[in-house]
Order: sequence, then C-alpha cells, then structure tokens
Amino acid sequence: MLATVIHAARDIRVETVPDPVITTGDDAIVKVVAACVCGSDLWPYRGITPTHEPHRIGHEFIGIVEAIGDDVVSINVGDFVIAPFYVCDNTCANCRNGVSTSCLNGGWWGSNDQKGAFADAGQGERVRVPLADGTLVVVRRQGQGHEHEHEPVLDEHVPGLLALSDVMGTGHHAAVSAGVQPGETVAVVGDGAVGLCAIIAAKRLGATTIIAMSRHADRQALARRFGATHVVAERGADGIAAVRRLTGGIGADRVLECVGTKESMDQAIRSARPGGMVGYVGAPYVAPELPLRPLFNANVGVNGGVAPVRGYIEELLPDVLSGAIEPGRVFDLELPLAEAAEAYAAMDERRAIKVLLRP
Amino acid sequence: MLATVIHAARDIRVETVPDPVITTGDDAIVKVVAACVCGSDLWPYRGITPTHEPHRIGHEFIGIVEAIGDDVVSINVGDFVIAPFYVCDNTCANCRNGVSTSCLNGGWWGSNDQKGAFADAGQGERVRVPLADGTLVVVRRQGQGHEHEHEPVLDEHVPGLLALSDVMGTGHHAAVSAGVQPGETVAVVGDGAVGLCAIIAAKRLGATTIIAMSRHADRQALARRFGATHVVAERGADGIAAVRRLTGGIGADRVLECVGTKESMDQAIRSARPGGMVGYVGAPYVAPELPLRPLFNANVGVNGGVAPVRGYIEELLPDVLSGAIEPGRVFDLELPLAEAAEAYAAMDERRAIKVLLRP
Repeated sequence: MLATVIHAARDIRVETVPDPVITTGDDAIVKVVAACVCGSDLWPYRGITPTHEPHRIGHEFIGIVEAIGDDVVSINVGDFVIAPFYVCDNTCANCRNGVSTSCLNGGWWGSNDQKGAFADAGQGERVRVPLADGTLVVVRRQGQGHEHEHEPVLDEHVPGLLALSDVMGTGHHAAVSAGVQPGETVAVVGDGAVGLCAIIAAKRLGATTIIAMSRHADRQALARRFGATHVVAERGADGIAAVRRLTGGIGADRVLECVGTKESMDQAIRSARPGGMVGYVGAPYVAPELPLRPLFNANVGVNGGVAPVRGYIEELLPDVLSGAIEPGRVFDLELPLAEAAEAYAAMDERRAIKVLLRP
Repeated sequence: MLATVIHAARDIRVETVPDPVITTGDDAIVKVVAACVCGSDLWPYRGITPTHEPHRIGHEFIGIVEAIGDDVVSINVGDFVIAPFYVCDNTCANCRNGVSTSCLNGGWWGSNDQKGAFADAGQGERVRVPLADGTLVVVRRQGQGHEHEHEPVLDEHVPGLLALSDVMGTGHHAAVSAGVQPGETVAVVGDGAVGLCAIIAAKRLGATTIIAMSRHADRQALARRFGATHVVAERGADGIAAVRRLTGGIGADRVLECVGTKESMDQAIRSARPGGMVGYVGAPYVAPELPLRPLFNANVGVNGGVAPVRGYIEELLPDVLSGAIEPGRVFDLELPLAEAAEAYAAMDERRAIKVLLRP
C-alpha cells in the first residue's frame, strides 16, 4: 500500500510499504477514507525535532473497518470509524479518569504498540489499529440508535469527522482544561486549526466574549464565523494591553493556549485575569519552562496537556453531524495522498490552515 | 507602642514605634489580641530574602477595634476582628472574582497603603487598618445573628481564629485550587502549619484518602489528628513511589504543595496522577520554574498562588467556633510579644510548628 514517509526535514515522500495485517485478536484494519497533516507534524518537517531515520508519519484519520481480530467486540467490518491520534484501551485507570492519552496500555501511530507490533501511521491507505475496541469510535448517524448499520457516511461530513480525530477535541480540551463557564470571557492564543477549534469549543461551552488573537485575515474571518466576538491582531505587550481593554482592565477569565512556544505561553499567562486559568494544548516541543512567580502572585492556573480526544468524540459527534459546530471548515485545502509533500509545504508556508488528504 | 522590627537576618527586635492614628475615613485602629510568626517571615529571618534596612514585620493578627474612621460602616468600636494577611477593599473586580489578594486598591501589612500612609505590620500592639470595611471580618458567635454585639470571644477560640488570618485559609486555598472533591485521594507536600491546615481542608472537602508527607513524629501525629489516613516519610523518588503504592500505581488525584521550593514542587507534580491537579500555596521565594513537558505529557495542572483568605474567613469561621475543625492546634508555643526573637528562633530551629504572640 501507499503511505507517507518522512526522510528528513522538508523531505516527505509517499512510498509503497507493507500492507498491514491482523497481528493480535484486539486489532482492526481500517481502510483510510481521509487523513490530514497536523501542526505538530510540522515540527519534524521544519527540522525543529530531528528525523534520525526515515519513518512513517501522520496520526489523524477516519475510515472503514476492513477486518477485525477474533477478540474485537464493539467494532464490525464495514463500520465507519474515527481514530483519535493515539491508541488506548479505554478501560484502564487513566482512561477511566478521562486521560486516555496516558493509557497504561496505549501507544502512538507510526510506532510499535506495547506488544511489539507496528501500528501504521495515519497518512496511508490502511492502518493496523491495536486495541480497536478502545481506540475506535463508530460513526452512527443520528436517529438510528445503537444498532449496527452500514449506511454510508455523507461525504459532506468527512472533514468534520476527521477534525474529531485531533483538532476539534484538542481545542475542546483547552476549553475544558481552562474551565470555561457560561458567560465568561475567553481569549484564544493561536489561530491554527486547534486555536480555531478552541473558539468553537469556547462558544459551545457558553463563553459570551471570545477574543481571537490572530494576524491573518482569512483566519480572522473563520474565527468570527466560529464565534469570536473580537479579534486582536497585536502580540506581546500590545496584545496583552488590547485584551485588557476588552476585559475591564483585568484580563480574560480563561485563556486557551494553542501554539506551544514560550512566547505564546507568556502571552497566554499575561492575558489572564487574576484567578484566571490558562488551558493549554500547544505541544511544547521546545519545552519552555513556566515562571512560577507571576502565576503565584496573580493566582493564574495552568492546566491542560496532550488532549485525551478519544473521550470527547462521542460528546462532540452529534454536534458535528447536526451541523451545530463546523470544525471541518479548518480544512481549506484537499489533496490526494500522493501529493502529501505539497500538503506539508502548503501548511508550512501558511498557504493552508489544514490539509485533508484522500488516499 | 511596641512592635517587632527586623534589622537583618536573625536580628529580630521588639521596639517602641509610633502609635498608629486614623489617617483616612476608611481606617480602623485594632488593638492586637494575638499575632503570630508566618513561615514566610522565616525567609528574611534566614537571609534568603535580603533585609536592606530595618522594617516592621508580621502579617497575621486578630484583635479588638479601638477606633474607626468616619466612612467605616460595617465595623464598630469593640468588635472582635480577624485581619487577613493583606489589605483589600472586597469590592473591586478582582475581589469580586474571589482574588482579593489582587485587590486593585489593596496592600500589605508593614508598608504604605495606596494613599501613601503606613499600615502597621501585625506583630505589634496596635495596627492601623486601611480599607477596614473590606479588610476586617467581625467575629460574631454562633446563634447571635448579624446584630452587633460585644460578648467577649472565648480565649480558647483565639488560636483557631488567628489561624484564619492566614494558615487555615491558605491550606484551604490549596485544596480549593486543586479542586478536591468528595471521595478523592489527596497528597499533601509540606508539614508546616499550612500543610497541616491543608489536611484539615482536604478532609473538610470530603477527601477520603489523605496522604501526609512528613518526617517529623510530632507533625505526623497532628496530621493524623487532622485527618491524614496515611503518612509518607520518604522524599524524592522514594516518596513518589510510596504515594504510587497507595494510589493504585497512578498517583494522587490532587496534590497540595505547601512549601514553595523547587524540590517540593517537583515532588508535588510527580506525585499527581495523569489528569490530576497540584494546588500550590507555598510562596516561591526562590522563584522555581516549572518544567512544562512533564505537565503536558500527563495532563497535570498547576493552580494556586497567594491565598485570598479574606474570602474564606466567613466560610470557615463557623467550623472553627463549633470545633468542627481545629486549626488552632498548629500553635504549639505561645510567647509574649516581647519575646518575638525567641518565637522566630523556635520556628527556624523547628522547635515549634507555629508560635502565637500575645502583646
């Protein structure tokens, strides 16, 4: 089959790789309907994190189950499924605590599972899914109850469903981690796909003032469509001053940090009001440290992390299918899998917010 | 009048200073019934924070109102009052948000208020209290409604009431910031007065497993009396392993950090389970930085800061007066104000957990 392989910084190739096969009773094989490029995929693409040897890449996909292992009970051949960006059993203590990204038996796409077998990355034609009962969520269209059914998922739903594999759940996690309550004021740092989804999430949770921090006209427009009531184009001290002006001089109740750099985290912390909370989901690849003293002095909390989106899919899925939320709009470019290199380049050069790939 | 003055590291003197006088209509003069030494007073005492010139010290006191300014409406001469460890108006936006330590008009004992007049420190015979209506809480004994009354506060209540000026509210803030819920497992890092009060708070909020991290037999005993179900004497990796053994291998739901050093914060973060929350109130005088990556990977949040105890006094006061909670037991030494130097030495040398001073 064909799959994307990163060889080095800015060297993305679509190559023929071995077809996946069922290796344990817990497995499923999923034929990928759509995959995409994540902002975090740009870290190795840009060489900020090193690529020591060629390896498969991509961790967001949706598709149709082609085969299942003997022990799989909740997934059937023919099901349309959403995969979160990681593998989890959905039953261990951490999963039960809502932190399936810390699953005691879990793993990551494009690397070996805990039994030593390779779990394909998401940007390919097929994926071997370990722990299929825990990992995959079946899409059942509204009003059809829980019975198994094979009606095709509408093509118009594909982008929104794909967004549930990562960015929508990740934006939601920022809002949940920050503790967004109805009527509150929320500032969102970052206008990538996750930041834009965080705006959707803040509005969905009842925030009434949503400040999008964005410098790009197209993203500002999408932010407003998603629910932003204000846009702040300034950064640094000017950006903080602008947020203060919009919040009675004290700062935002909640700030959603969706970038992962030292600058964005500082921006987020300093945009929060005393007693406010920063919900952060930007992957800190450069591992910034948080200065404790300003947090302490102002009672600003910091909560979040790698988003346990598996647990959010069922909650958000009905709103995607009904059109109540439209996270699929973050995909502003669609390419065949064979053009994955161009997908990376388009996102790297900010010609696209997020690229959907069709095998 | 007499008041405590710090001249340099380990140089505490009780000296004659000017009697306070009413300087604005918002003021009250309080005759101090009891004051105490805070763990944070030990930072300048030990020379960890420098003392550039002699200055008044102490920020925890209770007493009786001797005089009020013309504009004071909720406080009367003769009232028995609790002062939080700071000045606040209790009406500004930050106070209304529950963060009175960030009061827009507030200040700190032993320094000038925002109008430029000196607010005495707490370890003295009298204190000028700015913003008296906002700062002070009147002690009204149970069952007597809101009417003004002059019945004397029982002497047995003095330590407990004094604890409400800082340590009990601060321990409570750690628990509230961590989001302690009924039935949860809570680990407490630090066995000083605040850590011990955090145990009281965790139990009061319904935690059913409370792990006190303490190496001192007397403090372990008090921790158990306050509600600790387990004591862990180990620190570092051994301490974390012990907490894991008590928590099904994953760590505590909530960890209350009540010290303020890099070591204690690391201990707290690494003792929390994935998705857990560290509530921290230890003053970070040495300003440790938080490593973001382990927090991100495990979705461990960090929330807390300088505790807005003013807002907690009314909530906790009935439980102190009824004996439901006994934070006054953290005072294991009582001395006359004249012996303040010995009070500091006793706490510095860990001969006392916390010292109550009587003018």
